[in-house]
Amino acid sequence: MNQIIETLLSHRSIRHFEDKPLTKEQIETIVTSAQAASTSSYVQAYSIIGVTDYEKKKTLAELSGKQKYVEKNGHFFVFCADLYRLETAGAMENTDVSTAIESTEKFMVALIDAALAAQNAAIAAESLGLGICYIGGIRNNLEEVCALLKTPERVIPLFGLAVGYPEKITDQRPRLPMKNVYHENEYQQNMAEFKEELQQYNVLVSSYYEKRTKGKRTDTWTGQMAGTLRSPSRMYMNEFIKNHGLDLK
Amino acid sequence: MNQIIETLLSHRSIRHFEDKPLTKEQIETIVTSAQAASTSSYVQAYSIIGVTDYEKKKTLAELSGKQKYVEKNGHFFVFCADLYRLETAGAMENTDVSTAIESTEKFMVALIDAALAAQNAAIAAESLGLGICYIGGIRNNLEEVCALLKTPERVIPLFGLAVGYPEKITDQRPRLPMKNVYHENEYQQNMAEFKEELQQYNVLVSSYYEKRTKGKRTDTWTGQMAGTLRSPSRMYMNEFIKNHGLDLK
Repeated sequence: MNQIIETLLSHRSIRHFEDKPLTKEQIETIVTSAQAASTSSYVQAYSIIGVTDYEKKKTLAELSGKQKYVEKNGHFFVFCADLYRLETAGAMENTDVSTAIESTEKFMVALIDAALAAQNAAIAAESLGLGICYIGGIRNNLEEVCALLKTPERVIPLFGLAVGYPEKITDQRPRLPMKNVYHENEYQQNMAEFKEELQQYNVLVSSYYEKRTKGKRTDTWTGQMAGTLRSPSRMYMNEFIKNHGLDLK
Repeated sequence: MNQIIETLLSHRSIRHFEDKPLTKEQIETIVTSAQAASTSSYVQAYSIIGVTDYEKKKTLAELSGKQKYVEKNGHFFVFCADLYRLETAGAMENTDVSTAIESTEKFMVALIDAALAAQNAAIAAESLGLGICYIGGIRNNLEEVCALLKTPERVIPLFGLAVGYPEKITDQRPRLPMKNVYHENEYQQNMAEFKEELQQYNVLVSSYYEKRTKGKRTDTWTGQMAGTLRSPSRMYMNEFIKNHGLDLK
């Protein structure tokens, strides 16, 4: 196993950071690494907003569900789907690109581009001895997040990435059995086997929680998923996206 | 600069591979690395299909716009948004999770999860001395791709990842100026500056193409974007996704 794979495999989300800001050089290295990721047809359909202003970070933490580590970290990045730049490129060439930009396809491209860049940023940070945590919580209140970060139309903040010096390192949560995630030549067709794999995984996850909480929690994975998905969240998203210039056509 | 950042920064897409299959160990390392990526609320809402069957690869290459490197490579992965597994988890817990699963929010979660995993896979592969190329082209004909890979409802193939031993290594395409991608505290508000940055980038991109093609091509970035986006592509996507059990509500 090489050092890179070791870094990938030892990932865990960090939720307690020291109050020590990243240097300009560290930030530049992380952003340059993000930009080096693949991009669909060279569109580079994302932007990154680095939030350093203390009041803004505090507000973001509040908007994300009172997550302390959104406020206290080394640096807070917000990754956005960005089709505004492509619209500008079109305008500079006197070309109407709105139909493409308003399509579901281009929305997908922007999300995928942003996520590939973000994962490069995450790995670059971890390679520097820093910890990271993705913050989907910013999607709780996107209207307010957009106002705070002054994003133009056709830019949608997708998630945050808190980066910093780890204060507390947690265990890794066990992943799904590879067989349940990785299929050969066609998607696994045997439903009984599929469920059996999830049952075995439940035992693993349950014993992980039991150990970690000294018996206080014994959640299974399917139990946790059912519990979370029972109450749908962020159901305003479709309308929000359409209101912000990405029509999902 | 450490070795990991060096690997991230030296990425280029490889479009010519040797005809030498990856070993089982290499594939397992790549998939395990993919699984180690962050996942939104532990949902792990993606699946990976490894295509080794020669006829299937040939068909996929045809469906992706006659891309030879979809057929000839060391291994071909297809990354899918997967909400079928979560539906199964719900069923195992006698819980109706369909409203959540059919939301735009969960579609976004699945896309982001799949892309984070894919980028880990890409980096793991590159760390092993292999080359990679993302294949968005599989979205040209998703109905046929789904039939070929026998994906159930609520599973959407998003992109391929061709991996293999590089036969020909190309130059890196220059990325957008960092200032145009990375904003501090708020999205860049000066439109004149924003356009000026893109103009400067155009000069850089144009000289890159001129050098690479010995003067045959001198595309600018905004020109290339306008040229591509003038004709919207894959406009069937919204309907396709809805027909496959993800309602984008």
